[in-house]
Amino acid sequence: MDENKTLINLEDDISEEDDPIVLNKKTGHSSKPIKDIEVNQSEEPTTSSSGRTAPANSGNYPLIDNDHPPLLENFTPPVPRESQINGNAGSASRDINNLEPIFHLRSRTAAASTPNYESLDYEVCENTLFQDEQREQLAERFSLRKDIIRWIIFIQIGIITALIACSIDIIIEELSELKYQFLIKSVQENVPLSDATEGDLVIPYLYWLLFSILPVAFGAAMVTYIEPITAGSGIPQVKSYLNGVKIPRIVRIKTLAVKAIGVITSVVGGLAGGKEGPMIHAGAVVAAGISQGKSTTFVKDFRIFKAFRDDHEKRDFVLGGGAAGVSAAFGAPIGGMLFSLEEAASFWNQNLIWRTLVASIISVFTLNIVLSAYHGLNDFTFTGLFNLGKFDQPLKFDYFELPIFMILGVSGGLLGAAWNSLNTKINKFRKRFIPWKIGKVIEAVVVAIMGVTLACLMIYFINDCRPLGNDPTNNPVQLFCEDNEYNAVAALWFQTPEATVRSLFHDPPGSHKILTLALFTVVYYVLSCATFGLNVSLGVFIPTALVGAAWGRLLAMVTFYFFPQAEFLHPGKYALIGAAANLGGVLRMTISLSVILMETTGVESSFFFPLIIALISAKWVGDYFNEGIYDTQIQVNHVPMLTWEPLPQYKGLTAQKILSSPVVCIKLRDSAHYIYQMLKKCEHNGFPVVDNVEGNRRSEGRVCGIILRSQLIVILLKSLYVENKRFWLPETSIQTFRDLYPRYPSIKSVRKLDEKINYTVDLSMFMNPSPVRVNPHDSVPRIFQIFRALGLRHLLVINNENRIAGIITRRDFIYK
Amino acid sequence: MDENKTLINLEDDISEEDDPIVLNKKTGHSSKPIKDIEVNQSEEPTTSSSGRTAPANSGNYPLIDNDHPPLLENFTPPVPRESQINGNAGSASRDINNLEPIFHLRSRTAAASTPNYESLDYEVCENTLFQDEQREQLAERFSLRKDIIRWIIFIQIGIITALIACSIDIIIEELSELKYQFLIKSVQENVPLSDATEGDLVIPYLYWLLFSILPVAFGAAMVTYIEPITAGSGIPQVKSYLNGVKIPRIVRIKTLAVKAIGVITSVVGGLAGGKEGPMIHAGAVVAAGISQGKSTTFVKDFRIFKAFRDDHEKRDFVLGGGAAGVSAAFGAPIGGMLFSLEEAASFWNQNLIWRTLVASIISVFTLNIVLSAYHGLNDFTFTGLFNLGKFDQPLKFDYFELPIFMILGVSGGLLGAAWNSLNTKINKFRKRFIPWKIGKVIEAVVVAIMGVTLACLMIYFINDCRPLGNDPTNNPVQLFCEDNEYNAVAALWFQTPEATVRSLFHDPPGSHKILTLALFTVVYYVLSCATFGLNVSLGVFIPTALVGAAWGRLLAMVTFYFFPQAEFLHPGKYALIGAAANLGGVLRMTISLSVILMETTGVESSFFFPLIIALISAKWVGDYFNEGIYDTQIQVNHVPMLTWEPLPQYKGLTAQKILSSPVVCIKLRDSAHYIYQMLKKCEHNGFPVVDNVEGNRRSEGRVCGIILRSQLIVILLKSLYVENKRFWLPETSIQTFRDLYPRYPSIKSVRKLDEKINYTVDLSMFMNPSPVRVNPHDSVPRIFQIFRALGLRHLLVINNENRIAGIITRRDFIYK
Repeated sequence: MDENKTLINLEDDISEEDDPIVLNKKTGHSSKPIKDIEVNQSEEPTTSSSGRTAPANSGNYPLIDNDHPPLLENFTPPVPRESQINGNAGSASRDINNLEPIFHLRSRTAAASTPNYESLDYEVCENTLFQDEQREQLAERFSLRKDIIRWIIFIQIGIITALIACSIDIIIEELSELKYQFLIKSVQENVPLSDATEGDLVIPYLYWLLFSILPVAFGAAMVTYIEPITAGSGIPQVKSYLNGVKIPRIVRIKTLAVKAIGVITSVVGGLAGGKEGPMIHAGAVVAAGISQGKSTTFVKDFRIFKAFRDDHEKRDFVLGGGAAGVSAAFGAPIGGMLFSLEEAASFWNQNLIWRTLVASIISVFTLNIVLSAYHGLNDFTFTGLFNLGKFDQPLKFDYFELPIFMILGVSGGLLGAAWNSLNTKINKFRKRFIPWKIGKVIEAVVVAIMGVTLACLMIYFINDCRPLGNDPTNNPVQLFCEDNEYNAVAALWFQTPEATVRSLFHDPPGSHKILTLALFTVVYYVLSCATFGLNVSLGVFIPTALVGAAWGRLLAMVTFYFFPQAEFLHPGKYALIGAAANLGGVLRMTISLSVILMETTGVESSFFFPLIIALISAKWVGDYFNEGIYDTQIQVNHVPMLTWEPLPQYKGLTAQKILSSPVVCIKLRDSAHYIYQMLKKCEHNGFPVVDNVEGNRRSEGRVCGIILRSQLIVILLKSLYVENKRFWLPETSIQTFRDLYPRYPSIKSVRKLDEKINYTVDLSMFMNPSPVRVNPHDSVPRIFQIFRALGLRHLLVINNENRIAGIITRRDFIYK
Repeated sequence: MDENKTLINLEDDISEEDDPIVLNKKTGHSSKPIKDIEVNQSEEPTTSSSGRTAPANSGNYPLIDNDHPPLLENFTPPVPRESQINGNAGSASRDINNLEPIFHLRSRTAAASTPNYESLDYEVCENTLFQDEQREQLAERFSLRKDIIRWIIFIQIGIITALIACSIDIIIEELSELKYQFLIKSVQENVPLSDATEGDLVIPYLYWLLFSILPVAFGAAMVTYIEPITAGSGIPQVKSYLNGVKIPRIVRIKTLAVKAIGVITSVVGGLAGGKEGPMIHAGAVVAAGISQGKSTTFVKDFRIFKAFRDDHEKRDFVLGGGAAGVSAAFGAPIGGMLFSLEEAASFWNQNLIWRTLVASIISVFTLNIVLSAYHGLNDFTFTGLFNLGKFDQPLKFDYFELPIFMILGVSGGLLGAAWNSLNTKINKFRKRFIPWKIGKVIEAVVVAIMGVTLACLMIYFINDCRPLGNDPTNNPVQLFCEDNEYNAVAALWFQTPEATVRSLFHDPPGSHKILTLALFTVVYYVLSCATFGLNVSLGVFIPTALVGAAWGRLLAMVTFYFFPQAEFLHPGKYALIGAAANLGGVLRMTISLSVILMETTGVESSFFFPLIIALISAKWVGDYFNEGIYDTQIQVNHVPMLTWEPLPQYKGLTAQKILSSPVVCIKLRDSAHYIYQMLKKCEHNGFPVVDNVEGNRRSEGRVCGIILRSQLIVILLKSLYVENKRFWLPETSIQTFRDLYPRYPSIKSVRKLDEKINYTVDLSMFMNPSPVRVNPHDSVPRIFQIFRALGLRHLLVINNENRIAGIITRRDFIYK
């Protein structure tokens, strides 16, 4: 229902049919504010599904209609307002136009030209076939077996996600090491060491350019031409999927391959981004791949795990995969579990969460083993990819520092909000002026060149030499410095961003000049802003943390410069708080981010409090201005994400105000021909099944269930008609429907019903007999809660006589 | 509905009424398995609400009726089976007895003589008054203010919970120190130091007895005579409350006071129990007290936070309070948050969880400050009450140890299951043979004497002398030992159980003899089993961890004795794994327990994996035998807790099989007299409101809402009749109903309606117009999910014509 592309013209004649199909477009509801939305929506440009579209949300749709009488007077529960509810057989004064409401299109969603995101079918369809399976399982102790298999899959998800994360990490580390070693050698060869003020940096600069442009161009080309969905961090996509939106191609193996190569090339190319976001996406793909036991990319069906082939099970596995990805990325198993919960869980299912936690812990453990072995460590002390390093001594703080932390938090919120806003503007510009594919690749290259050039300029113009020996940087560069000194600016740039974060946390006080760090902060702020939104696979976590750590440390240094007696100004501590504040300001993820930071930095639980103060201040200040970067991306792409609470505009409304009507219904026993024609003519995905129908006035029947488009197509494909029941009944089970999951064929692949034109379909065995139903006068906050808590796709609105009044889908909750 | 005490005989004449009320008891449903349950249930002994009743669950109710036709043939969704659904006006062949079904009692629940636990009204009643308030709040930006107040309350909860925890902890520590110092002095005076084999232990023994008996008797008497609900750890009660069951008197300030004194006396008295469980209960009381802005104990209404006076808000605050309590007890803020979630959350509400986390962190922070100041520490490194101490160096493990950890887990599961079973048997015995209050006090004293005597015997007969110097015990006793030695047995006993756990984790290898530890394990296992279930306030966490740590360390020592070359056998590590395994085996809490252990011990994230392995093995092995100790307690008390998943017996059933019918209904406009009589005659708590009623055939009307007993009583009390509308309408708001929360008066406090006998009540303004409705053929697992996810109290079952077919409440899901 959410996914109708364009208004379908049903007025074309369908005259060969036995049921004359009459179109009844909803017209002239001028008092309904929804109408305005339709118009606005349809004026918006259609977006590609590349995850990189321009925001077109004007944001001022008038939803609250003040002309409408207030609720109290309007309150007559038993009899719904007839003018609003179509197909109400009990109403006396019915519109003359509605006399034959055989076949309706819910015109609002049909008219909306937003991209065709579908919802997941998270609701289990408990039809007769499902019940049969349940009974069989009761008998065979099948349930226990299924449970054990589920555990095995979760453990596999943890292990494989960690292995993929390790591979990516090791490759990036090796290649970066090669690159920066070569560059340092080149610098040392071309700049005479003794003459610290002169030297030719052109050749190293050109090498640097080359080693940036090549991988970035390759990565951007792969992403752009092969799989555009892999652009960006992948977290918004996974978030949307877990929220219940079907994002096409997001969990394919091809996507994983492109993403892995994309992230390697981008990080090695030196773009301002991290590999953590893509890890989470990788975990999701692994989960979906393993749990389904088949791959569309390789056209291979392993014929295992068949019982898990539905949206409900798949989403649960992807939840575990996302958690395993976060855990691997940050070495934070509890944070991983909470990330998945925060993004996904509407219903707290203890078993699912327990499995998710185990997958997370196994993922961290596997990563520990592999990376410890790789780094030649005896114990498993290597934790996570984003290893911030343990602080030498427990971080301490004094009471009077708490206000300082709060100020840092506020700064983080302001800077983060500005970053989000700037980034959104850049991406809007991009979308508008760079529509061509080749342009997107060139743009990535340009940003890479910009980064290298700025870094080179900084190294060339700033003279920041420090004595060797107390710096943990692997590759000290002597460039322009005396013997026994190294160039602190080059040290910041000649490593991966992640290593720079570590330096900022752990370098001893006085490792950098104030000017160095100030310029570095500004440059990296701009660079990271320009980078996020390029058509490359890159996460936003590391650059954000880096910028925050830089200005946090900077602030401590500046303060210490003016108040040299303030010994509490441990620069590493302030770098950590700054990173937290900046992350809070940009990402606005709250619970899981706090826990991830706590786990990653391994601070004492007494230091949670300063972290939380910084995070909360940053989030609240940032929320005053705009939304988090992930949510902004989701909004820009018009993904119909359900929020946590119903939007405030909906607070006083009733279901009546947001439902879509009229509704296309199907009779419990309906003709195959009607179903075929209907599926061809409209693009809805769920159809109420009605009974007690007089003639063809379907929308006046009593609701007895709901059936999905995909189920109807399977019924037609497999010819499950009443007339030939004896052929298919014995061997038809719920597995017949699962076999075609997840890519059900479209109605076009169903042959035209020639000889079967008069056959009948009896839906009583296939339909979901327990759809969730609400009344037209139920309040929107209440039905929103039901919708979200149960993970629904369709919510039927019925009147007090159990006749359909309308249907509510995800999209009806998200107009702003 | 869940709470009817006895079968009410409505056949007594009510002849003075204008509506003749006819009883229609459900009789002779011999094909309904429910009937068997009723009989069984009513044969069970009634239980007191003291939380300490005997289990009477025979556990073999035949719920799946094989005589019943299978579902497939039975599947006719539109027309429910008439014989089962009463009051179906559409059915032609109605029973002659049902011709006048004016007033029905749902006899099943009425007949069950289980204790009268009510459900919380977690579902928000969105009646017209509520909607009015919502609209006002929209206008006044009230919503933001309410949100800020909510935050303030959560912060207060964190602070006050921590302060209470600190006070209890400090008092216990000081008193214990005094007690054990005195005993040691007494030992040293009475046992000649030079003569290590002789000496008179009788006087110290008598002193010890005195210092045990006095506080234990005092605590037991307080609990028994003043507030019996404070017995035990309080976790089962908080768990039940969070699950949605109204446990009387659980969140009163009086309860908190008795609990605090009770736990101090019991721990100081030396019983085998901890103070952690009671902390959680204390947090819950604090939360309920602060958020309501009034106290029943002190009969004081502060006239603040009036908007939060309903079950929904209160439960959310108690969630935060429980989390703050756990956090304070274990220094584990994330664990605290997860504990509350695991026990309570059915619907994942991001804001609530965020507030809970903040309350937890603030609680830990406050505790840190106070206890650090008390202990004279400069930094805030004191974490939690249950401070296991940090391990000196990161715990390491080798691959081949993983199977050993698993074996430890299995042992923990077996020992835990045995402990639970033994404890249940002891409590059954207690319940049967010690019904008198004074007996319960004496029993506690006897257990205290037993503990002291066993400890003295161990100290007397075991000769385990260790050189002084490398033992972290505060009070080394030289008793029977050479100079420069101390008695290791006395060291184990002469401190609080918590300190003993710390010793077992951190004492260097070779601190005890194998025999010492083996005997200690056995003695403490039995003692803790005898203690849990006494009428004293004590938690089970510490003794369980202590027993586990003891046998874990013992195992490492024994293995090391046979394989002295096995250097990996760090006894502290095995003590930790043993404690985890034993906790997993006894408590069976999974997610939060893992996280609490991880946070409390502060181990590296790589060590999570061994912990999880031990916990999972223990839980799974234990679950094979019985349930966790908290769940056992809950079951024994017949608390109608909702499980996570529907019970397997319910898998193939439909709503029809579990609903209660007939149902007592009220007309939308009904006579005050009818309502008054009905409330007097039956004890249900929710009544469907119907419309389109012919005469008095109420149960044939169309459902348009539901109204609670408490609302009806307020309507009668305040005389909110149609006839005098002009007097009350302007000043009646949702606050009118909240003012009487939480202790609504009973119907007996409503004066007899003399002059108002013909007045009418119009429920359209008061009723909840959006009750959740399901159909009789909906499957039980599905409606269970809806019921749990939405936190419902009543679920209306309606047929396809929107007439009431039955009602489902919490109790209908929990028959086993």
